[in-house]
Amino acid sequence: MSIGVCYYPEQWSQERWETDVREMAAAGFEYVRLAEFSWGRLEPERNTFDFEWLDEIVALVGDHGMNVVLCTPTASPPRWLLDEHPEIRQTDRDGTVRAGGSRREYCVNSSRYRVETERVVRELANRYADTSHVVGWQIDNEYGCHDTARCYCADCDGAFRDWLAERYGDADGLNDAWGTTFWSQQYDSVEQASVPAPTPAQDHPSLVLDYCRFCSDSIVAYNRLQAELLREYGDWFVTHNFMDRFPAIDLYNIADDLDLLSWDSYPTGHVQATDGQPTPDQLKAGDPDLISFNHDLHRGVLERPFWVMEQQPGDINWPPHSPQPAEGAMRLWAHHAVAHGADAVVYFRWRRCLHGQEQYHAGLRKRDGSPDRGYHDAARAAEELFDVGNVDASVALLHDYENVWALSEQPHAPDFDYWALVQSFYRALRARGVQVAVVHPTTDLSEYGAVVAPTLHIATEDLTDHLTEYVASGGELLLGPRTGVKDEGNKLRPASPPGPLSSLVGATVTHYETVPDQFDRTVVVNGTRYAVRTWAERLDADAAVPVVEYTGNELNGSTAGVRNAVGDGHVVYCGVWPEQELADDLVDTLLTRSGVDHADRLPNGVRAAVRDNHTWVLNFTSDRIDVETDAEWSIGSARIDPFDLAVADRDLLDGLTVNKRA
Amino acid sequence: MSIGVCYYPEQWSQERWETDVREMAAAGFEYVRLAEFSWGRLEPERNTFDFEWLDEIVALVGDHGMNVVLCTPTASPPRWLLDEHPEIRQTDRDGTVRAGGSRREYCVNSSRYRVETERVVRELANRYADTSHVVGWQIDNEYGCHDTARCYCADCDGAFRDWLAERYGDADGLNDAWGTTFWSQQYDSVEQASVPAPTPAQDHPSLVLDYCRFCSDSIVAYNRLQAELLREYGDWFVTHNFMDRFPAIDLYNIADDLDLLSWDSYPTGHVQATDGQPTPDQLKAGDPDLISFNHDLHRGVLERPFWVMEQQPGDINWPPHSPQPAEGAMRLWAHHAVAHGADAVVYFRWRRCLHGQEQYHAGLRKRDGSPDRGYHDAARAAEELFDVGNVDASVALLHDYENVWALSEQPHAPDFDYWALVQSFYRALRARGVQVAVVHPTTDLSEYGAVVAPTLHIATEDLTDHLTEYVASGGELLLGPRTGVKDEGNKLRPASPPGPLSSLVGATVTHYETVPDQFDRTVVVNGTRYAVRTWAERLDADAAVPVVEYTGNELNGSTAGVRNAVGDGHVVYCGVWPEQELADDLVDTLLTRSGVDHADRLPNGVRAAVRDNHTWVLNFTSDRIDVETDAEWSIGSARIDPFDLAVADRDLLDGLTVNKRA
Amino acid sequence: MSIGVCYYPEQWSQERWETDVREMAAAGFEYVRLAEFSWGRLEPERNTFDFEWLDEIVALVGDHGMNVVLCTPTASPPRWLLDEHPEIRQTDRDGTVRAGGSRREYCVNSSRYRVETERVVRELANRYADTSHVVGWQIDNEYGCHDTARCYCADCDGAFRDWLAERYGDADGLNDAWGTTFWSQQYDSVEQASVPAPTPAQDHPSLVLDYCRFCSDSIVAYNRLQAELLREYGDWFVTHNFMDRFPAIDLYNIADDLDLLSWDSYPTGHVQATDGQPTPDQLKAGDPDLISFNHDLHRGVLERPFWVMEQQPGDINWPPHSPQPAEGAMRLWAHHAVAHGADAVVYFRWRRCLHGQEQYHAGLRKRDGSPDRGYHDAARAAEELFDVGNVDASVALLHDYENVWALSEQPHAPDFDYWALVQSFYRALRARGVQVAVVHPTTDLSEYGAVVAPTLHIATEDLTDHLTEYVASGGELLLGPRTGVKDEGNKLRPASPPGPLSSLVGATVTHYETVPDQFDRTVVVNGTRYAVRTWAERLDADAAVPVVEYTGNELNGSTAGVRNAVGDGHVVYCGVWPEQELADDLVDTLLTRSGVDHADRLPNGVRAAVRDNHTWVLNFTSDRIDVETDAEWSIGSARIDPFDLAVADRDLLDGLTVNKRA
Ligand SMILES: [Mg+2]
Ligand SMILES: [Mg+2]
Ligand SMILES: [Mg+2]
Ligand SMILES: [Zn+2]
Ligand SMILES: [Zn+2]
Ligand SMILES: [Zn+2]
Repeated sequence: MSIGVCYYPEQWSQERWETDVREMAAAGFEYVRLAEFSWGRLEPERNTFDFEWLDEIVALVGDHGMNVVLCTPTASPPRWLLDEHPEIRQTDRDGTVRAGGSRREYCVNSSRYRVETERVVRELANRYADTSHVVGWQIDNEYGCHDTARCYCADCDGAFRDWLAERYGDADGLNDAWGTTFWSQQYDSVEQASVPAPTPAQDHPSLVLDYCRFCSDSIVAYNRLQAELLREYGDWFVTHNFMDRFPAIDLYNIADDLDLLSWDSYPTGHVQATDGQPTPDQLKAGDPDLISFNHDLHRGVLERPFWVMEQQPGDINWPPHSPQPAEGAMRLWAHHAVAHGADAVVYFRWRRCLHGQEQYHAGLRKRDGSPDRGYHDAARAAEELFDVGNVDASVALLHDYENVWALSEQPHAPDFDYWALVQSFYRALRARGVQVAVVHPTTDLSEYGAVVAPTLHIATEDLTDHLTEYVASGGELLLGPRTGVKDEGNKLRPASPPGPLSSLVGATVTHYETVPDQFDRTVVVNGTRYAVRTWAERLDADAAVPVVEYTGNELNGSTAGVRNAVGDGHVVYCGVWPEQELADDLVDTLLTRSGVDHADRLPNGVRAAVRDNHTWVLNFTSDRIDVETDAEWSIGSARIDPFDLAVADRDLLDGLTVNKRA
Repeated sequence: MSIGVCYYPEQWSQERWETDVREMAAAGFEYVRLAEFSWGRLEPERNTFDFEWLDEIVALVGDHGMNVVLCTPTASPPRWLLDEHPEIRQTDRDGTVRAGGSRREYCVNSSRYRVETERVVRELANRYADTSHVVGWQIDNEYGCHDTARCYCADCDGAFRDWLAERYGDADGLNDAWGTTFWSQQYDSVEQASVPAPTPAQDHPSLVLDYCRFCSDSIVAYNRLQAELLREYGDWFVTHNFMDRFPAIDLYNIADDLDLLSWDSYPTGHVQATDGQPTPDQLKAGDPDLISFNHDLHRGVLERPFWVMEQQPGDINWPPHSPQPAEGAMRLWAHHAVAHGADAVVYFRWRRCLHGQEQYHAGLRKRDGSPDRGYHDAARAAEELFDVGNVDASVALLHDYENVWALSEQPHAPDFDYWALVQSFYRALRARGVQVAVVHPTTDLSEYGAVVAPTLHIATEDLTDHLTEYVASGGELLLGPRTGVKDEGNKLRPASPPGPLSSLVGATVTHYETVPDQFDRTVVVNGTRYAVRTWAERLDADAAVPVVEYTGNELNGSTAGVRNAVGDGHVVYCGVWPEQELADDLVDTLLTRSGVDHADRLPNGVRAAVRDNHTWVLNFTSDRIDVETDAEWSIGSARIDPFDLAVADRDLLDGLTVNKRA
Repeated sequence: MSIGVCYYPEQWSQERWETDVREMAAAGFEYVRLAEFSWGRLEPERNTFDFEWLDEIVALVGDHGMNVVLCTPTASPPRWLLDEHPEIRQTDRDGTVRAGGSRREYCVNSSRYRVETERVVRELANRYADTSHVVGWQIDNEYGCHDTARCYCADCDGAFRDWLAERYGDADGLNDAWGTTFWSQQYDSVEQASVPAPTPAQDHPSLVLDYCRFCSDSIVAYNRLQAELLREYGDWFVTHNFMDRFPAIDLYNIADDLDLLSWDSYPTGHVQATDGQPTPDQLKAGDPDLISFNHDLHRGVLERPFWVMEQQPGDINWPPHSPQPAEGAMRLWAHHAVAHGADAVVYFRWRRCLHGQEQYHAGLRKRDGSPDRGYHDAARAAEELFDVGNVDASVALLHDYENVWALSEQPHAPDFDYWALVQSFYRALRARGVQVAVVHPTTDLSEYGAVVAPTLHIATEDLTDHLTEYVASGGELLLGPRTGVKDEGNKLRPASPPGPLSSLVGATVTHYETVPDQFDRTVVVNGTRYAVRTWAERLDADAAVPVVEYTGNELNGSTAGVRNAVGDGHVVYCGVWPEQELADDLVDTLLTRSGVDHADRLPNGVRAAVRDNHTWVLNFTSDRIDVETDAEWSIGSARIDPFDLAVADRDLLDGLTVNKRA
């Protein structure tokens, strides 16, 4: 388990390089990420490459016993290229062309940009093909950042028509798949189709879903171009640095071209990008369940350890507020990542940059080059971390980007956010310390003791068979609301929801409604009353047993959730969006019935995670906590300080109890 | 009094049609609306018309004893037409051209689109000219929906110049009418004029008012084109389906070309489109005063019964929240419409559509074709409804679209919304069960016992004469604030408000101000204190008697409203925007003085309405209510359940008392 | 000290002119401002000038013993000019061209508009060169109003490149100044640079700062063109009417071309344009500290008396709310302006205009020409005002537009508003009745007893020397947070803040953070606890003594502010944004230590000001107040009514005590 750092030598005088590299090595770092965004420096004019500076710094890193991860610099084309070929730029939906002068202004469907990409990637890969300590590549940087995953340029418009022709053949196929008799939207030819444009009323939802698929596929194809080029030259690993719950790219598809998934973790920023008011502790250390959801997703996609390619080093520039992280938070985050399956944690960046758009982003080193708080935390983590096998998750959480896209176009309720619904269930699992694999619904589920699907909005007959087999073989499945509503064309299924899953669930949805704040929509489970929000279905139970019922007002006694026994397992379908207490109740029951090991309910902000027979207890709060155990601790102890952690070298999860100290 | 339904056979397989039509007839429906948005199906390629499908369904409807209302399909041009003639599309104020792929993207001032319109309308009208059960036509659909009443394309720009030249002759006429010495805005020629464009500062208010008139006139002309074509072919009625308080089209003008006014009623949506937080009951059944204002407007324009052309059938897709309507609400709405003068209530739509933009809109039938809650409600209404004469309104409420436009451009206060001001007075009238005709200020008023004008912002000498004659002949007139401020050019009148009405009112406005939340602006009427909001005038009473006075703070004792005796009648001028209690007080006094029959103040959400010696008592609340009467009830009884109603076969209004049951 | 009025004779019939002018003179007015926005009237078609009307009104004003201030009419080009040369118009950042039909649509960098400007200004200046009572000129009107200080047209784009080439020479100079290795932003040539454009991510902050400098310089150059032309023809004064805290133009630069600074004062509007909810009293009379900040700024720039060129006359049209000003407020504002150094107060406008965009803006006369409340107030002020020398400010407040621009591009905290930070310190000074000069940091400070710098964000070595000399010579300096962060290129300085000022301050900033509402960031000064907001620095004191310390939570005891003794003076550095109580404490200590005369803390809304041995006590509240003094009063008395004032003919400031009456 390694620590690394992102370094931009081109931003500092050459005299400083050796000092910097020496102090990276002194801190115990093992990886240095280089050359991101450096195209302008690598190729100052067309076909005149300047590799000397990069050669030197690569050599220096090697001389100090560290490895290099290189980046392809395609996220920021140089000015001369933009001047020569302005057509490589993206266009907004309203027709505005995106200008240069920041980053990510290029379009992945530009054939010219693909040519230029190939040119620069070949030069770079060829240059370092024989440098053994260049061990891997990050392709580009943060695809889709700054709302750049969706482009409306002429190249995209043409490519989208080709994509549709490939998928549907002709106008008949397209008209059937989308349903176009509504508002005279019939196509006479696929050539009439185009990317979404400023219409008076809303877009056709089937167009939007396919456009989202196309945009994701376009990035996948562009990434594949680079991955295949890199593999021509060496035996290095190939990765990309993704972002917090990034909705526009289907990770399960793009992963086919990657050896390793990595993501960029900025806990105090992510927590400000979600609904609701963060607590002071969350503003200083993040929400552990938001962070680990990403860990579990990027680990789950390939069911293999992942990297944190950029780890927050201190205060950052982009969220609304920039508090100083809590004392020790930068170390806590590294351990947290490793506990959830990271093999490396790479801090962004070595030193605060004096110019450009990120001056208000800290580095491990201050603006004057001296160590900042993050440096000490990172060095301590580097010293403490030890090698460990992969995470063995006992519960699978089913996640599918097609549902993200379909629900994002038709949320129907003002606050129906896919990620928030997922988080309700995920948080309940993590409150019991359970390791969760965030996997695609079609994944083989046989190894998981329980499966939670917060929503399976688009559901097929194949998926039904897959889940039925899981349950019938003794699996325990918890399904969330708005499931089985749509077909793959984003049309309504003619049958009542959950459509093809109705037999598995043993019930159907007779009516649904959104839940305004003014409504009191309370349910009761085993005598306990719970609040629901956002979405409420009324069920007609067939084979199933009602287990969640409305109480009070005109819905009193009608059914909101059911349990169905199928073969050796059970399905629980919850037709409402649960507030946290209801999700906790449903998940507790699921874990108990499935026999999955779990802790006592952990305090808010305190989390436990087991990886390869090591147990981490992590304190994301300003309270002191005590672990009730007589285990030996290899790091820390049973009495854990604010924002500190402890590690025991065995699996403590079953019945683990942690208390806040008075 | 009839029930009907909107049906889109083109969205369903032909085998299903007979079942559907049979079940419409079984429910007692009398009208089926067909062919809306079906241009793409009717004319799949230029000049190749396919009427077979429509012939068949029209025949089926006739075979089952029902009548057909056909729609001209011009609200959604087919793709091949947009491809051939992209110039038919609208342009936004910022220059963005509106794309196809939804609906209403065409410009009514496009000469090409008028040609195409004529072509398709002639084909359709000719086809069904001899089909006797095709009894009427709906032209187009919801003019102006999705903000499409205002277009800024080159066709509109040119047509606007022609319109100005017609109205004003030359630049001198234009300069005089608008006043253009301000900021060097003088025109040298009418040719310099253009539609509003992105200026650094605000637009000239006189330009804006004339542009609003022009946009309304453009739609009137486009509608007339279709109406005249249809009348060439048959003796059917011609209507259009308008929308909730739609501000962009002068109904009093467009009605000249229509035989019947109709509107589209979606109570749980409309109530979410107004200021303030709806109550749970309103979210489930709407606000009866919002709904009936539309009934009374669409009846008042032609002083003739109207239709609800689209009646909400269940949950709907477009408001922020989509609650399930209360049990019985779909029936309650039909009775409510009839009580206010509807001759037919047509539910939208038969069956939930599986594809396109309105998947989240219920039908009377579920997605699988089985009956939904709305079907049962509609069938019950069809069974209960009986024939009845027209409404005989005792009070006229004066409404003028020119005031809507002028005040919308210069609201001056953040919350000065014309419709909200109108609603304050209208609600007070309806709380007494009084039937109200919403008529143009120039209407003959001699039959009305009392007249309420919430504001007569633009006032002319002719209007003054008209109102003076009404009052002098014994009429009772209640005038609201901001009256008599402007001339027809949207210039200030040189005289203090109410300008030409000053002598009738017997007072003038010395100062006005807006009312921030921080201000305490309280008035006193006959010893009772009332709150006011938004707008406050200080009056100088001349002939008139002060009846509303400010109390507290620096305005204590100054005049906010007056009463003036003129001939055999009286005028009350209220110079403040009344909160509801003050409006209730003013209206109660008005009704008493004018001798108009009225109920005791009805509970919120409970309403009564008399039509042709039948009295409806309608309960839009979840409370049980009791009517104090010994009348016989032909529907229901004096004890009315939540969201239920009762009908007595005589006029119970005078002194009617209704109580919420404990 | 004089009163004047703005008059637009072109908007009224010629028969009325003599009456109007006579009644201006009768009220004691001395100045009439004419010809603003009148280009269309002066030159109805190209090269055909019509001066007759202006000749006549100018003569009338002279005949009645008053002077004329003429305006160049360039703020509103006539329609024929826009038609002939549409290229003179501005372009928005997104490419939208600004249309005519309101005002300020022209671009100062249009060479065509400069030619047209020269043409019309020469005609006008030549015409009145020999009219002795035409004593001065207002150039144009309110530069930058309606967001017009920033233009993105092709002319501006080219001019910006020239400006950069002039400043930096070549690409190396530009790359060095901005720092462009970040995100491959290196320039190969200055020709590649352009004005900001719609980039996916944020702009380079150095580009933005230089673009702001360029935009200000462009207006300065355009203004200079006019000023120099006017000076060719006469010996009149030249001014421009600026706006409330207008951020886009560097007043310290543009003032080089002006004889007199003037600004447009609308107290009930300005108070609604700042954060927070105004009180009812403020809605009726404004916030005296917002108003006088502008007085002190426009006086401070040239250290010379200023004019209020437009004084609010009654209710106004542009803020969210338009309350009627309090009784007497129009007189109170005139005295307030004079107390802070105004030599003339010119009311806008004579009579409410019946047409165009400002119909809802009062004049001194009503729409019918009769006197309105403002007329009586203005006449009373004209009678009372007396001649008096300049203000002698004892405290300098340092203000620099480059800091406005740099902090506006990178506020970093959601509520970091430069003007609000400045106001915190300024308000504390005014609560003690101290006269403040708002001067550029490079001003000679030797005459000031104390100096307050709310922030010196961009700081140079020269500025350091300048301030060190001031302090070492016995000066007392109070510095606010976020000081010494940036260099002139808007790059971070490599040294920790306050960078070059660190030795003077005797401390450095180790960390900073923004302060979300959820955080409790309390400090303690001499045992008293104070709240801070928005921005919090942690200091490492070197030579300095900690005087502000954090208390509570994890920061307890760390340093937030220090005092350093340097030579004969002291520097206090406050590293937090103080809530008002902390600013009051710091300012009280500063005034005491520096021996600057000051009053006891004055009640909120009550202010005192001394000018040339006269003391004004001004009551901006609805309370009655008493002054504790036995001084004689030349206007009013020690018992002051709501919104009234009193003037004593000596300096009462030291120890002045004012109480609200019970
Ligand atoms: Mg895959
Ligand atoms: Mg008419
Ligand atoms: Mg200067
Ligand atoms: Zn593209
Ligand atoms: Zn148009
Ligand atoms: Zn420009």
